[in-house]
Amino acid sequence: MQEFTKFPTKTGRRSLSRSISQSSTDSYSSAASYTDSSDDEVSPREKQQTNSKGSSNFCVKNIKQAEFGRREIEIAEQDMSALISLRKRAQGEKPLAGAKIVGCTHITAQTAVLIETLCALGAQCRWSACNIYSTQNEVAAALAEAGVAVFAWKGESEDDFWWCIDRCVNMDGWQANMILDDGGDLTHWVYKKYPNVFKKIRGIVEESVTGVHRLYQLSKAGKLCVPAMNVNDSVTKQKFDNLYCCRESILDGLKRTTDVMFGGKQVVVCGYGEVGKGCCAALKALGAIVYITEIDPICALQACMDGFRVVKLNEVIRQVDVVITCTGNKNVVTREHLDRMKNSCIVCNMGHSNTEIDVTSLRTPELTWERVRSQVDHVIWPDGKRVVLLAEGRLLNLSCSTVPTFVLSITATTQALALIELYNAPEGRYKQDVYLLPKKMGESTLPRKAALRFFFIKQIFQVVDSFRVIPSLVCFLKKASNENGKL
Amino acid sequence: MQEFTKFPTKTGRRSLSRSISQSSTDSYSSAASYTDSSDDEVSPREKQQTNSKGSSNFCVKNIKQAEFGRREIEIAEQDMSALISLRKRAQGEKPLAGAKIVGCTHITAQTAVLIETLCALGAQCRWSACNIYSTQNEVAAALAEAGVAVFAWKGESEDDFWWCIDRCVNMDGWQANMILDDGGDLTHWVYKKYPNVFKKIRGIVEESVTGVHRLYQLSKAGKLCVPAMNVNDSVTKQKFDNLYCCRESILDGLKRTTDVMFGGKQVVVCGYGEVGKGCCAALKALGAIVYITEIDPICALQACMDGFRVVKLNEVIRQVDVVITCTGNKNVVTREHLDRMKNSCIVCNMGHSNTEIDVTSLRTPELTWERVRSQVDHVIWPDGKRVVLLAEGRLLNLSCSTVPTFVLSITATTQALALIELYNAPEGRYKQDVYLLPKKMGESTLPRKAALRFFFIKQIFQVVDSFRVIPSLVCFLKKASNENGKL
Amino acid sequence: MQEFTKFPTKTGRRSLSRSISQSSTDSYSSAASYTDSSDDEVSPREKQQTNSKGSSNFCVKNIKQAEFGRREIEIAEQDMSALISLRKRAQGEKPLAGAKIVGCTHITAQTAVLIETLCALGAQCRWSACNIYSTQNEVAAALAEAGVAVFAWKGESEDDFWWCIDRCVNMDGWQANMILDDGGDLTHWVYKKYPNVFKKIRGIVEESVTGVHRLYQLSKAGKLCVPAMNVNDSVTKQKFDNLYCCRESILDGLKRTTDVMFGGKQVVVCGYGEVGKGCCAALKALGAIVYITEIDPICALQACMDGFRVVKLNEVIRQVDVVITCTGNKNVVTREHLDRMKNSCIVCNMGHSNTEIDVTSLRTPELTWERVRSQVDHVIWPDGKRVVLLAEGRLLNLSCSTVPTFVLSITATTQALALIELYNAPEGRYKQDVYLLPKKMGESTLPRKAALRFFFIKQIFQVVDSFRVIPSLVCFLKKASNENGKL
Amino acid sequence: MQEFTKFPTKTGRRSLSRSISQSSTDSYSSAASYTDSSDDEVSPREKQQTNSKGSSNFCVKNIKQAEFGRREIEIAEQDMSALISLRKRAQGEKPLAGAKIVGCTHITAQTAVLIETLCALGAQCRWSACNIYSTQNEVAAALAEAGVAVFAWKGESEDDFWWCIDRCVNMDGWQANMILDDGGDLTHWVYKKYPNVFKKIRGIVEESVTGVHRLYQLSKAGKLCVPAMNVNDSVTKQKFDNLYCCRESILDGLKRTTDVMFGGKQVVVCGYGEVGKGCCAALKALGAIVYITEIDPICALQACMDGFRVVKLNEVIRQVDVVITCTGNKNVVTREHLDRMKNSCIVCNMGHSNTEIDVTSLRTPELTWERVRSQVDHVIWPDGKRVVLLAEGRLLNLSCSTVPTFVLSITATTQALALIELYNAPEGRYKQDVYLLPKKMGESTLPRKAALRFFFIKQIFQVVDSFRVIPSLVCFLKKASNENGKL
Repeated sequence: MQEFTKFPTKTGRRSLSRSISQSSTDSYSSAASYTDSSDDEVSPREKQQTNSKGSSNFCVKNIKQAEFGRREIEIAEQDMSALISLRKRAQGEKPLAGAKIVGCTHITAQTAVLIETLCALGAQCRWSACNIYSTQNEVAAALAEAGVAVFAWKGESEDDFWWCIDRCVNMDGWQANMILDDGGDLTHWVYKKYPNVFKKIRGIVEESVTGVHRLYQLSKAGKLCVPAMNVNDSVTKQKFDNLYCCRESILDGLKRTTDVMFGGKQVVVCGYGEVGKGCCAALKALGAIVYITEIDPICALQACMDGFRVVKLNEVIRQVDVVITCTGNKNVVTREHLDRMKNSCIVCNMGHSNTEIDVTSLRTPELTWERVRSQVDHVIWPDGKRVVLLAEGRLLNLSCSTVPTFVLSITATTQALALIELYNAPEGRYKQDVYLLPKKMGESTLPRKAALRFFFIKQIFQVVDSFRVIPSLVCFLKKASNENGKL
Repeated sequence: MQEFTKFPTKTGRRSLSRSISQSSTDSYSSAASYTDSSDDEVSPREKQQTNSKGSSNFCVKNIKQAEFGRREIEIAEQDMSALISLRKRAQGEKPLAGAKIVGCTHITAQTAVLIETLCALGAQCRWSACNIYSTQNEVAAALAEAGVAVFAWKGESEDDFWWCIDRCVNMDGWQANMILDDGGDLTHWVYKKYPNVFKKIRGIVEESVTGVHRLYQLSKAGKLCVPAMNVNDSVTKQKFDNLYCCRESILDGLKRTTDVMFGGKQVVVCGYGEVGKGCCAALKALGAIVYITEIDPICALQACMDGFRVVKLNEVIRQVDVVITCTGNKNVVTREHLDRMKNSCIVCNMGHSNTEIDVTSLRTPELTWERVRSQVDHVIWPDGKRVVLLAEGRLLNLSCSTVPTFVLSITATTQALALIELYNAPEGRYKQDVYLLPKKMGESTLPRKAALRFFFIKQIFQVVDSFRVIPSLVCFLKKASNENGKL
Repeated sequence: MQEFTKFPTKTGRRSLSRSISQSSTDSYSSAASYTDSSDDEVSPREKQQTNSKGSSNFCVKNIKQAEFGRREIEIAEQDMSALISLRKRAQGEKPLAGAKIVGCTHITAQTAVLIETLCALGAQCRWSACNIYSTQNEVAAALAEAGVAVFAWKGESEDDFWWCIDRCVNMDGWQANMILDDGGDLTHWVYKKYPNVFKKIRGIVEESVTGVHRLYQLSKAGKLCVPAMNVNDSVTKQKFDNLYCCRESILDGLKRTTDVMFGGKQVVVCGYGEVGKGCCAALKALGAIVYITEIDPICALQACMDGFRVVKLNEVIRQVDVVITCTGNKNVVTREHLDRMKNSCIVCNMGHSNTEIDVTSLRTPELTWERVRSQVDHVIWPDGKRVVLLAEGRLLNLSCSTVPTFVLSITATTQALALIELYNAPEGRYKQDVYLLPKKMGESTLPRKAALRFFFIKQIFQVVDSFRVIPSLVCFLKKASNENGKL
Repeated sequence: MQEFTKFPTKTGRRSLSRSISQSSTDSYSSAASYTDSSDDEVSPREKQQTNSKGSSNFCVKNIKQAEFGRREIEIAEQDMSALISLRKRAQGEKPLAGAKIVGCTHITAQTAVLIETLCALGAQCRWSACNIYSTQNEVAAALAEAGVAVFAWKGESEDDFWWCIDRCVNMDGWQANMILDDGGDLTHWVYKKYPNVFKKIRGIVEESVTGVHRLYQLSKAGKLCVPAMNVNDSVTKQKFDNLYCCRESILDGLKRTTDVMFGGKQVVVCGYGEVGKGCCAALKALGAIVYITEIDPICALQACMDGFRVVKLNEVIRQVDVVITCTGNKNVVTREHLDRMKNSCIVCNMGHSNTEIDVTSLRTPELTWERVRSQVDHVIWPDGKRVVLLAEGRLLNLSCSTVPTFVLSITATTQALALIELYNAPEGRYKQDVYLLPKKMGESTLPRKAALRFFFIKQIFQVVDSFRVIPSLVCFLKKASNENGKL
C-alpha cells in the first residue's frame, strides 16, 4: 500500500527460469544515436569485420562508424571527470591488473568511458549489451576499433542477445574473474551454462533493481557462490537517479517529444516520492501549475508544505494539460480518467515499469491510435478528442530523454570502485553474500591493503572533488582517515 | 564527526543529578508577550489571588491579565484545527475521562490550547513551566481563570521553579496517573521526591531531546518503571521543527532583530542538514546569495545540486553579510573568523545549543559590547568594526522569532494522541520502556479498543484533513482500516 | 480601469485647501519603537527641555530617551552604506555648505541618518514630522541631543502638527533655502503662510505620490515658483518600494501580526502588478499555494507563466486562508466576499490606501469586533466565524512591518543627491517646473560644475558599490564619463 | 552603450540594396525534421510533382512526405488553441474573404497552422520561405497536398530563394492584396520588381526586427506606399520571445546538444535583460550556480535582488562550466576569455546575432576544430583543452532548440488579427506609415466595423481564454466595451 518511489531502471519480479529478462527488450531511445542502421540489413553475425589493427575479436553493426562513436565518447568524457581522473592515476598503479572482466550493460558513450577506464586500470574486458535496443552502434564500433571485445548492436533478436553474451563468456584461453552485470542476464547465463567459471570469479557487481533482486534470491537459496556488490542501492545512485536526474529528465522528455511549453500549463503529478519531488520541482520552476495526488500522509504533507495543492485525480483530470505518474503502483491512471481528459492532454509515466497507466484499456476498437512521432501516439476518441500518450506508458526518461552524463558518471565510478574493491579484497573480507556499499562510500569504502591505500584516499578525493566539493572536505577526510585508521 | 542536523529545543547531555536543567534557564523571547511584568515586584508566591469563580488553586503573576491571555489563546486556536476538532469530538466520548495529568511545558498560547483540549477530553490537569523565562503571564492567567491549576510565571527563580513543580505533583486528595513532560525536570522530581506516585502512573509522554535522553538512560539502567512515549523523534515533529519551521523562522528571527533586507545579501550557512536546508531555501527565495559549508559529502552534494556554492568558511568570511550556523558542532565560527568579518556582519545560530559560535572568545577587554536591542549586541573592535551578534549565540528561532502555531499544533496533537494511547492501552501492550511512535502515526497508531475505535479513525482523518490533505486519503484510510482490521 | 500597481506611501487625491493631509493622520506602527510614551501625559509643547549642550532649540517627547534612539540610528547606519560613504566624503568638500534645509518627513532611525548626513555635508536643518503617529520619540530625542532642530513626537494633535511645521519655517534670523518634503504639507504651509520664503528657496525635493501630485497641480496652475524634484518616480524607488520591498514585507507583516505559518497555506492575491508580483514570489517560495485575480490580460498572462492559477475571487474565497489586496482599486474585497470566507481567514491590504477592502461594510451591529492585538481585529459573525482583519484594511507594510533599511537608504540617497543637485545647479538649469530624475540617476545625474565633478563620479560609484555592483561597472562608468563629458 | 536586451530573430542592420537578407542564410535546426533529404539530390525545381487532387501549383522537396508533415501540423495544433478557435468561428463569417495573401515566413508546423487558418478565414495564400535552411520539407509537402501554393524546401540556393518568392508574387490572373513578411525580403522583392502590385495591397504585416527596421527606413524616406503593422514590438511577442521562451529554450538547447546536467553546474550569464532573466531563472531553478555580468546598474541591481552574484567575466571565467551571452553587444566573450576557460567549458549565445562570442578569433591554425555533433564543435587547444562551442556562436535557441508552439501561437494570432484589421479597416484609418499594435492588443485592437465587431470581441476573449485567463476578465472586457464604446 505504501508508495514505491524508486525509479527502477529494470522492472519488477521475474524468476530466473525465464530465458530473457523483460528489461532487455524494453524499447530504448538514445537521443545521441543519429545514424540510421536501416541502410544495412545484413546481420552483424554474418559480417566479416576487422578493425584498423587487424583484430576481428568483436561483433558490431558497422566498424566504419567508429569515428563518429569516438566523438560521442569524447563528449561523454567531458562530464565524467571522476572516471577520467581515476584513469589518469592508472598510469602508475594498475589496480585492475590481471582482472578479466566480463560485462553486460547498456552500450552507450557513457558506459564506453567506464569500459575504457577499466582497461586503463589494467583490466581485460569482454562486453555485451543488456538490452536488445539500447546499443549505440557507433559507440560499439569505436570500442571495437579501440580493441575492446564488444558483441552488441541495436536491434538484436533474442537469439542474438544470448549469442553475444555467450561469445563474451565462452572464449578459449580466456576466463573471466570478475562480472559486471546490469539486469542479471549475464550472471544467469554463467550460472546456467558455465557454473565452473565461478571458481575463478572474485565477485559480481550488479547495478539494477532486477539484478539485485535475483542476487538476493540466489543468496537466500544458498546458491550464491561468490561475493556480490549491490550498486543499485548506493546513496549516490538513489539520490541521483530519482531526485536530481528526474528533475531534469522530465523536462527533457516532454520537450523532445512534444515541444510543449511548460509556463502556465496545468500538470498533475501522481505520487510525491523522490521521483515526484524531482518532477514537481522542475515543472514548478518553469511556471507550470502543479497538482499532486498522494496517499502517504507524510509525503502529502511535504507536498503541502512545498506549496502544491494535493488533490484527488478526479478533481483535476478534466482541466489538466499534462498527467505524470510516479507512484510505483498499478493502474493509477485508468480508462475512466483517460475518458475524462481534455483534448490534447499529454500522459506519461516516470514511475514504475509500464503499469501505472492502464494502456491496455486504450487498445479497443472505438479508439484510433496514430503514431505521430517516435514514442508519441495520439489516441483518438470517436468525438475527435486526442490524448497524447508518450512511450506507450513506459518510462519516459528511459525512452524519450537522455540521462545526464554526470549522473551516469557517478554510478559508473561506483561500479569501478566496487570492482576494484572486490578484486583487491583480501580473502575472507567478503563472504558469499550481497554487500551494500557503505552509505558514505566516498569516505570509508575500499581497500586497506597497504600498497593501495594512499591511492584510494586520493582517488576518493578526486571523486568528491568532481562533485565540486571543497578543500575543507579533503582536509576533513584526510584527518578522519588518520584518526580512524580506516580510510 | 558527522553532522548533527536536528534542532534541539533542549540542549545537550546532563546528568539527572543536576538540580535544574540547563534548558529551563535559557532566555526565551515570546514575541506575543506585550505586557510588562516589571510593574509589579511582588512574588506571585506571596500574592493572594482568586479567579472569578472563587478558586485560588493556581499561582500566576496577575490573574487580571486573563482577558488579554484569552485573546492570545483564541488567536492560537485559529491555526490549531487538529486539536480543536479533537476537542469537539470530546462532547460525546471522553477518552481521557479519569486521567489526572501533571504537566510541565512552556506555558504559551499554544500549549494552553493543548491543556484545554486535554481538559475537554475529560482529563484533570495540573501544570507548571519547564523554563523560568518562557511563560506568557497573560496566558497563565487565562488558564487559571478557566480553572486549570497552573503554577508558573515569567522570571521564576530556581527555587520558584521547583516549588511550582512540587505544587503540581504534591496535592492532598489528588494523585497524577499521567505525566506530560518537556525536558525531564518534572519526571526527575517525581523520581526523586515521590517515587510512589509511579505506582499509579500509566505512562510518560516526553517531547524534548533532553528528556528523551534521560528516559533512555533510565531505561538502560533498568530504572524506568512505566512506559514512556518519545514524541521528539516522531516524523512529523522532526520534519516540522527542522525543515519547514526553520524555513520560516530564519527570516522572522533576522527581520525582528535587525530589519535586514534579504535581497542581494551574501549569506553563508554552515551545515546543510534539515535545518540548513530550511534556512537556505528561504534565504535563496528572497534573493539572498547563499554559500554553504559542509563536511558530509552527501549533504555537500545535495547543496551543489540545489544550486549553492559549497565553500570553506575562510573563503567567504570577509565578504558575507550574514553568518548562520546549523551544524550541531562546537566552535564552527571561531574568534579568528569573527576577526575577519566585515563591518556590520550579522552572526547567529540556528543549530545546536549555544556552542556553535565561540561567543566566549568575544568576551575580552579589547572588544566593546553594546546592547542595541533586546537580543541584539554590537560587538565593537578597536578599529570601530561592529559585528552584530544575535541572542548571544543561542538559538535564534527560540530567542528571536515565534514558532508558527501550526507547527506547534502538530506536536501538540501528537502529544495528545500519545496520552490517549498510553492511558487507554490494555495492560501489557506497553512495557517499562521508551516507545517510538510509529512512523506513520497518522495511520496506524492508537487504540483498538472497540468503543474508541471509530472515534480514532475519524480523529486521524481530522488531523490529516487539518494538514489540508484530501478526501481520497480518507477513502484510502477507510478502506485500509477495513482491510487490515487494524485502524 | 487599468490596474494601479504602485504602492503609494501617501494616499489618493486631495485638494490643497484641506488643512491637513490624510496621510499625516494614518496610523503608523514602528516595530522599533519599544518604549511606551503613555507614562508621560504632559504635552511636549509645555515641557522645558535642554540637551546636554544646553540647547533647547527643539521639541520632542523626552530628551532623556536620546541614548536609546542613538542605538537605533546606529543600527540603521549599518545598512545605509551609500549615505555613510557620502558623509565620509564630506569631510573634505561640503556640497551643502550654506544650505538651510527645512524638512518634513517621517522621523525614524533611517531618516535620522539622512538628516545627519545632510548636516555632515554642510547643511543646517530644521525638521518636523509628516505624520502625527510615525515619529520614533527616541530617535527624535537623539537628533535633538545631536543638535538638530527637530519638532516632532508620536501622537501629535492636528494643532501640534502645524505648530511643529511652523516652528521649523518661522524662526528669527534663519531662513530656509531648500525644502525637503514628504506629502506636501510643509510646502503647502509655506505657500499659505510665508510665500516670501520662496524668494530664497532654490528648490523643493518631494518624495511622495501625494506631494508630487500637489506639485504638478501647482505647476499646471502656473503657481510653482521654484524648481522641484520628483523623487517618487525614480526607478530605484519604484522598483524597491514595490517589488523587492513588498516581497519581504508581506511575510514580515503577516508574521508579526499573526505568527501564521506560510507553508501549505492557500492564499489569494488580488492584483499582479509590481506589488502583487513581490507578494506572490515570497509566498510561493515559502510553500504557500497562491491564486491570483487580475483583470489586466498582460499581467494575468504573466501570472500564468509564473505558475499561478488565475481565478475569480469568488471561485476560491471559501477555501483560502489568506486574502491580500494589491490592485489599487476600491472595494476589491466586498462584504459578500467577507461573508463567504472561512473561519479564521486573514484579510489584509498591500495596495492602495485603505479602500481595497470594504471595511465600512463590516461596521454593522450583527458583527462583533474584537481587538486581539495591536493592528489585529477579529471580526466575529453571529455563527461564531471569525475573520482576522489586519490594520483595519490600511497598508499592511506601513502598519505592521518594517521597511528594510536598505530600501530606505536608496530613497534617502536619492533625496540627498537631488538636494545637492538643486542647491548647486547653475542658474537657468532648472525652471519653475517639476523635474523627473533621469532614469539612470546612478549614472548621469548631477553637477557638471567642475569643482564638484570628480566628487560626484566617485560618489555615484559609491552608491552603485553599495548595491554590491562590480568593479567592471566602475570602469564602464569611468569610461562613459570620459566619453560623454557628462558625468 | 546601453544594453540591448531584445532577442532578435533577425539580425542587425542591412541596407535594402543587399540582394539577400543575412537572416535568410542563418543555419536553422528544426528538431522535428526527422527525415533526411539527402536521399534525393534532384532539385525540386526540376521535379514534376502533383498532389492527390491533381494540382501542381507548388514546389516542394517531396510531396510524398505530406502525411508525416500532416502529423506534425496536428501536433502543433494541440498547443495553438487561439488560432484554432479563430478558425472555427470562420465557418460563419469569413473576415478574410477576398484576401489574397502573399507570405514569406519560416515554413514549419506552426506557420502551417497559421496559413491554414488564414485560408479557413477566406484568404487565398501563396507562400515562400524566409530562410534557406528552415523549411520542414514534410510540412511544406502537407501544405501543398492541402492545396496551398507553397514554394519552399530545405537547403535552397540563393537563386532558389528568390525564384520561390517570385513564383509567389508573379502569377498570371492572381494579384496579392496583402503581404505577410518575416525579414522584409518579400517586401523588398515586390518593391524592386513589381512596384505596381502595391496599388492593390491593403497592407503589410511584418514580424521581424530586421523587416520592421526596413519598413521604418522606407517610411522615413517617404517611400512606404501602404500601411504596415509592426508585429515585432507587440507586448506579447516581446515578453514571450524574450523572457518566457528563453526560460525554456536555454535548457532545451543545452540539453539537446550536450546532454549536460544542470544541477551543480557553474554558469555565467552575460547580460541580465529579458533574455538573461529568462535564462537565469531556469538555470537557477534546476540547481545551477549562476553568475551575472551586467553593465547597466538597474539590471545589475535586479540581478542582486534576485539572488545572483554580479561579477566581472574575468573573475569567474576559469571556474565556470557554461558561458551564455545575452547582451546584444559584440565580442563579449573574447579570445582571451576563451583561452582561460577550463577544459570542456560550454560556450553559447542567446543574445544578438552571432557577434557576441568572438568566434573568428578561434579560427587560427593552432586551434583544432572538431565537429562532434550537429551544431556542436570542440575547439581544441594545443595542450588538449577543449571548449565546446554551440551553433558556432549563432543563436542557440534558433539553432538547437525548438520554440514552444504556444509561443509561436501567440505571435501567429497577432499576425492573423493584424491581417484582419488591415484588410477590413475603412479607408483612412491607416495612412502610409508603420503602426504599432496597441500595447493591450487583447483588449482594444481591431475593427469597429459594425458587422465584424461582435465577432472580434468574442475572438479576443477566445485568445485571452487560451491564455488560461478567466471568466471575470471576459465580464470586465464586456463591460469595458459597453462603457467605452470602443471594443
